[in-house]
Formats: sequence, structure tokens, C-alpha cells
Amino acid sequence: MLESLKQEVLQANLDLVKHGLVILTWGNASGIDRERGLIVIKPSGVKYDELSLESLVVVDLEGKIIEGNNRPSSDTQTHIELYKAFSEIGGISHTHSKYATMYSQACKEIPCLGTTHADHFSGNIPLARFLTDIEIEDGYEKNTGKVIVERFKTLNPKKTPGVLVSGHAPFTWGTNAADSVINAIILERIAEMAMGTYQINPEISELPRYISEKHFLRKHGPDAYYGQKKL
Amino acid sequence: MLESLKQEVLQANLDLVKHGLVILTWGNASGIDRERGLIVIKPSGVKYDELSLESLVVVDLEGKIIEGNNRPSSDTQTHIELYKAFSEIGGISHTHSKYATMYSQACKEIPCLGTTHADHFSGNIPLARFLTDIEIEDGYEKNTGKVIVERFKTLNPKKTPGVLVSGHAPFTWGTNAADSVINAIILERIAEMAMGTYQINPEISELPRYISEKHFLRKHGPDAYYGQKKL
Amino acid sequence: MLESLKQEVLQANLDLVKHGLVILTWGNASGIDRERGLIVIKPSGVKYDELSLESLVVVDLEGKIIEGNNRPSSDTQTHIELYKAFSEIGGISHTHSKYATMYSQACKEIPCLGTTHADHFSGNIPLARFLTDIEIEDGYEKNTGKVIVERFKTLNPKKTPGVLVSGHAPFTWGTNAADSVINAIILERIAEMAMGTYQINPEISELPRYISEKHFLRKHGPDAYYGQKKL
Amino acid sequence: MLESLKQEVLQANLDLVKHGLVILTWGNASGIDRERGLIVIKPSGVKYDELSLESLVVVDLEGKIIEGNNRPSSDTQTHIELYKAFSEIGGISHTHSKYATMYSQACKEIPCLGTTHADHFSGNIPLARFLTDIEIEDGYEKNTGKVIVERFKTLNPKKTPGVLVSGHAPFTWGTNAADSVINAIILERIAEMAMGTYQINPEISELPRYISEKHFLRKHGPDAYYGQKKL
Repeated sequence: MLESLKQEVLQANLDLVKHGLVILTWGNASGIDRERGLIVIKPSGVKYDELSLESLVVVDLEGKIIEGNNRPSSDTQTHIELYKAFSEIGGISHTHSKYATMYSQACKEIPCLGTTHADHFSGNIPLARFLTDIEIEDGYEKNTGKVIVERFKTLNPKKTPGVLVSGHAPFTWGTNAADSVINAIILERIAEMAMGTYQINPEISELPRYISEKHFLRKHGPDAYYGQKKL
Repeated sequence: MLESLKQEVLQANLDLVKHGLVILTWGNASGIDRERGLIVIKPSGVKYDELSLESLVVVDLEGKIIEGNNRPSSDTQTHIELYKAFSEIGGISHTHSKYATMYSQACKEIPCLGTTHADHFSGNIPLARFLTDIEIEDGYEKNTGKVIVERFKTLNPKKTPGVLVSGHAPFTWGTNAADSVINAIILERIAEMAMGTYQINPEISELPRYISEKHFLRKHGPDAYYGQKKL
Repeated sequence: MLESLKQEVLQANLDLVKHGLVILTWGNASGIDRERGLIVIKPSGVKYDELSLESLVVVDLEGKIIEGNNRPSSDTQTHIELYKAFSEIGGISHTHSKYATMYSQACKEIPCLGTTHADHFSGNIPLARFLTDIEIEDGYEKNTGKVIVERFKTLNPKKTPGVLVSGHAPFTWGTNAADSVINAIILERIAEMAMGTYQINPEISELPRYISEKHFLRKHGPDAYYGQKKL
Repeated sequence: MLESLKQEVLQANLDLVKHGLVILTWGNASGIDRERGLIVIKPSGVKYDELSLESLVVVDLEGKIIEGNNRPSSDTQTHIELYKAFSEIGGISHTHSKYATMYSQACKEIPCLGTTHADHFSGNIPLARFLTDIEIEDGYEKNTGKVIVERFKTLNPKKTPGVLVSGHAPFTWGTNAADSVINAIILERIAEMAMGTYQINPEISELPRYISEKHFLRKHGPDAYYGQKKL
């Protein structure tokens, strides 16, 4: 069942390691089959070099295990909340990548300081608030998803495909698992370059909006001219 | 004698190199056989690519060489003090890894700034004080162990599996040598991310306690649900 | 047509990846055949590991596609403006390399702080200004080239083979595509070391001019004695 | 002639690359045969992957080429001044390694902040002053050697096997070329960790002298007990 989705999710998890975004067991990628309402996700606490197609876990949108002999990622309920709220997305990555995690721990959004950011994320990289103690008791991982969704009340998750969770780490998403990994790579680089930019010039302002919009639109707008035409 | 322990200690020493925690001869890992009261440790000053099972040294808890043709690590007396005081531990790693050493040299404890830290270390990464000149004359390495133990008077070495030594570098430990290496990897990453977090936001506070406790307990508490069930 | 130029441009694009200056599709290298007035450039948005000689695009100095089935790099008009204005150059590289991009985003020129800089770039690494909104509407990439050329009104592009574009990233050039990659490597390292130098000593002054000139001239002057004699 | 010395110098130059201390052609290692008064050194401006035993240059202590078809390193006169003044040394490395160069450009000595430093360098990493314009005209490379020697008037080059040159980069030395490379690796790591230590705690003091002396002596003193006994 879901063989090609499993293949894609397996590859996405391995790519998180390959691109230096996770060490040990610190991250997980998932993908969703929207028609069947089924999610394929990394098993909890399993090392990346021990992952196989069989080790992946299939859950439904209630979190019920449909297939697999392992427990799913402890962050599964967070993934589910995002899939429920963001109907356009097909894959999610969660990492503790260095620089995005530093910004999460520092509880700072990342303003758009350059065209690298503008090419991929519209506006600030948003920061989801801390959970309250009641929210944690009530369901830590589910409510982590809910505070992310709360932060996106006025944002478009397609244009801003990622978030920093206060005191924790980033989540990114995309059209599929592979795309969520690409966005994790991009977010990490944006975070590192933002930190360095402020070190060089603590007074720097955001990129003028007419430039950031131009960059976002030349890549993602209706008249985008970046890349090759999709036929 | 102690073949499997030797194999484990050899691998742990090589893993310190593989994970970028030591260069040249700057570190050592050991393991203990609690029943026999014997420690296997790296020989002093030998390059990692020249290590073999035969080159390892077996010492007892008095530091007496029981087997081996080499001098044991110059830090052996520190390892012995830790094994004596922390009866639950089975392995120790000592490195001069970059970021943990920077914190040691800066004489600063590392507060818990995020869930990455909370997942693995309960509370601050503690800092052991400088030795006095009398303590150094009396036995530098032994007393290094003693000031670490002194710092843990009110701490649980199982929940806080590592320490920074003022002006020197970190020691980590675990259930065995391999586990002490994992904790060395984690400590290094926590240190690097703490430094960056303060760079981004010098005013940041510690993670709220109800979040750090949740994270520690979901991984290490009686009802831990991270990872696969051990059967 | 232009087989050896294509080979050189292909290699230059791959070298940008090899030297860690680009990830994803974030950069492009080109070369020019001055006699025919034809430029070979990377296709837009194509991954580096999918590049081939056939995938490269040949354009003339008006930007008209002369050969190739792909769209040329979206930055092609910038390359063209530089080739038109700087008649001595034969190749151009554009990257979003980390440290040069941080300086671009910080809108700071890089003063000459040491002999590493002086050996390769005469004077500051210059910063081209932001485009106005009218310039962006009128032709974003073409006008990016024009503001670079504007910044070089009083500079010699042979002695200062690169530039930072405000809020964007660096461009470098050279006698050919390979040489422009070398200058991208050098600029990146100069930027990283300048940032660190200011961190260590925020009050540091530029290298005394009699030293920077000595270094530039021993490598590039009429009596240069660095390297082997070209026969 | 001098085959084993050539082999050693070739390997040392390659090791500078392997350990990330040089890129492009930014560094050189040499070794001396004290009995014959001959130095083997890297040729100027030749890429490391094009080096061979035959490409190395043999010069005498006047700088006269005794063997080889290439020009020797442009820094040869600096090496010669050091060999003349420091009779105990057998090899020299010059790099533009990142962190040691940052300190050189920042014109700051590196105080002893921890045992990693104390294990290998006695006291500060010294800084040689800028040359005057007259000294540069009179012989830039020779006088670079002379200002290093001047800085060591009250220092012991065996105990402090390296220096930072103001506005330029480090030189290290040792009993032979390989040993000078080891000291270049150590200096680079000490510089990086010093920079980070000050970032974490700008008020930190030097390591207490009774600790730094203990560390230096346990490794290099008459009763050294680090490493294996040399028979």
C-alpha cells in the first residue's frame, strides 16, 4: 500500500541527513495521500541508517496506525494538525537544524533581508508562540500543530512554507515530502545568513518591499519567468 | 580479557573522531566492567588511526595497569573518580570539542534554551570550578574528577550526563562508552546552538520549566513515549 | 558551436557547487566569445547535476537565444550588461555564497583588512546600490547590471573583479569562466575573514596602503614575482 | 639530493590542504637539512594537486636556488630568516587559515584561555608588528622574517612555535615540516576557540598561570607523563 509515497518519504528522511539538517534521530519527514486520507511518516526514535520502507508507519488523520509495526514519530499529531489545516500541502519536514533552531530558541522571527529569502518565503519567517502549561497537558504535539495554525491565521502557507516554534525548532512543508526538505534547506540557509547579516550591520532594515515582491513573483507569480516552462 | 568491552571502547574512541569531536590526540573514551572493577581506556597520546584492541589499557579502580603495554590516558584518574562516584555509569568520553570547550573556557554554564537541550539534559549543563594550586600539586587529574563530583552534589548524573570543566573542556558519560559518545555529540550541538541563540537575542530566558520537563519526560520519564518499546 | 567555451562554462558551473558557493539552483556562470559576440550561460532553474553541454544556452549581446532548448539564466541580462561595459572580462559567476551574501544583505562594503584581500582585490569590495522601483519595473536584471557598472565608474574591473549587490548577492568576473569562479572563492573567504576580524576587534583599521599596494603589485604589477614565469 | 626531506616537505604541503588550512595556492611548507644548510620549499603559485618531488625547490640560506626548475615560494626569504634565527627548528608552515588570519588581521595576540592552548603554546600567541614602508621597500619578505624574530627577543620559539603577522597571517614551525603542520592545525583551533570564548564571555580572564604551567609541563616538561615513553 502507498508504495510510491513510502519511497518518497523514505528518501526525504534520508535527504534531511544528507543535507546536514538532522543528526542522531532529531527530525522526521512525512507525506500524505489526500485521496485516501493517509499519512506515511518516520517511526519514532529509529536511526536514519536503519530506516526501510517496511519501518515506515501509515496513520490516518485521527492518528490511528493503519499499517506498520513501529510507533510513528512522536511528532505525528503535529503533522496531522498541519495536514488538516493546510489543505494544499503534501509533505512536512521537522528538523532541529542549527540556525533555524537558534532563531526558534531566540524567539525571533526572521525578517526578509535579501533576495534569497524573498525568492522562497513571502514576508517574515513566522514564529509560533509557546504553548501554555494547560495546552501541554492537554496534548503537547497536537497543540504544537494548533499554535502553528493559529500563527497562520493571516498567512498563506503556500507562500510561507515554514515556521519556527518558540523554544523548539522549525517545521517546513511543501507540495510533497521532497519539497518540504528543499524548504528546510532554504530556511536553514536563510536563518544562517540573517544571523550573519545582523552581525555585520545590526541596524539593517528589511529589503524594500518592491524588491522582495519582484523576486517572489519572478519565481512564483502568474508571469514567473524563472526556471523552465512546465509543459 | 574483556574483549567485548575493548571492542566497544575502541569503537567509541574512533567515533569521537568520526563525529568531529576530537582532532590529533585530544580526547579519550573509556568503559567499565562493574563486576570485575576494571576499566578499559585509550592509551595516552596515541593517534586514533593507530589504535587497536591490543593498544588499549586495562586499569583497576586504583589506576593500576592490569593489562596492556602502553601508558593509559593521562586523564585516567579523572575517569576513575567519576566511575567511583557515579555508580550508574558505564562509559565516559572526554573531548576538546569546539563549542563545549568554548563554554568551558568562558566559565559559563549552558542554560536550557530549547527542547533539544531539554530532551537530553535536565537543567543547566553544569560547570566544575577551577582547581586550586594545592589541588593541582596534590594530583591534577584525580582532583579534576573530584571537583566534577563536587559540582554534582545536588545533581543526578543520569539526568545530566555531562559537565564543563572551567578553563578546560567537557566530560560526558552514559550507560556505556557508546552512550557517552552520543552525549558528547549532543552537548557539542547544544553548546553551539546556545551560543548562536544568545547572539540572536542576548535577552532570551530559559525555556519555561513546564516545557523542558515535558520534553525530558516524554523521552526519559516512566511514561516515555518517544522511540520504540524495548521488549 | 563554441564547444570549448561550453565545456569551460559547464565546468565553471559545477565548480561553484564543488567549492560550496551554491546550493540548489542558486547561481550561474557564463563565458563569452568576444569575436563572435556570443555568450554561453547556464539554463534557468536547472539543477547542477542535470547540466550537460546540450543544456547550456547560447545568447547574443541582445539576449537573443542563438542556440539551445532551454531558457537562459534569469540573470542573463545582468551578465550581458557586464560584458558590454567591461570589455576585458571573459567570464562571470553569480552566487548566493554565505558570507558575501551576508555583506550584500548588510549593505556594507568590505574594506581591505589584510594581505589575503590585497593579493586579489584592489581597494574595497564595492557595493552596488538598491534599484529604484522604476528601475525594477523597467527591467530588473538589466538594471542590476547597470547599477554595478555605475558603481565602477571610478573603479577598474580588472583590479577589482567582483561586486556586492545591495540586498542581493555577489557577482565576480575574470579572464574566463574558471577565473570568475576563483574570484568567487576568494571573495567568499575575504568576506568570512572580514566578519571575524571585526568580531575580534571592532576598531580595526584598513591595512596600511603601502602594504596592500605591495601585495597587489607583487602578484599583479609589471614586476610581479609571485608564481612561475609565463613563457 | 635530499630525497627524504623532499618527501617530507611534499607531504607537509599536501597536509595543509587536507586539514583545511589552505585553499588555492595560499600557503607553503618547508624543511631544512641543517648539516648541508639547504632548505626544500614549495614552488611559488603552483597548485597543490600539481606538486611533485621534482617541482620542489632547494635553496641555500642565502636564497640561492641550488636545485629545481621553479621559482621558490615568494615567502622564501621569510622562511630563511626564521631558520637562521631559530636554530632549533627543522620545518616551517605558512597558511592563511581562517581564524589565525582573522586574529592577524585584527592585530590581536591570543591569550591563553584554556588547557588546549596551554598544552601546546606557552603564553600568548604573539603578534609581529606591521612593517614600515621603508622595511617593505628594503625587502618585504626578508623583513617579515626579521619582525617575527624581533617579536621573539624575549620568547622561546620551541615553547611558542608560531606567530601572527599583523595584517597578514600565521607562521608556525616545529622540529620538522610535519611538526610545523601540526602546530598550524593547533593554532587554528586555538584561534577559533578563543574567538568563541570571548563571544560567550567578553570579560573572561586568562587561565590561571598555575594551571597553564601544569598543562604545558605534563606534556613538555622534564617529567612529562603525557604520551608513550620514547625509547
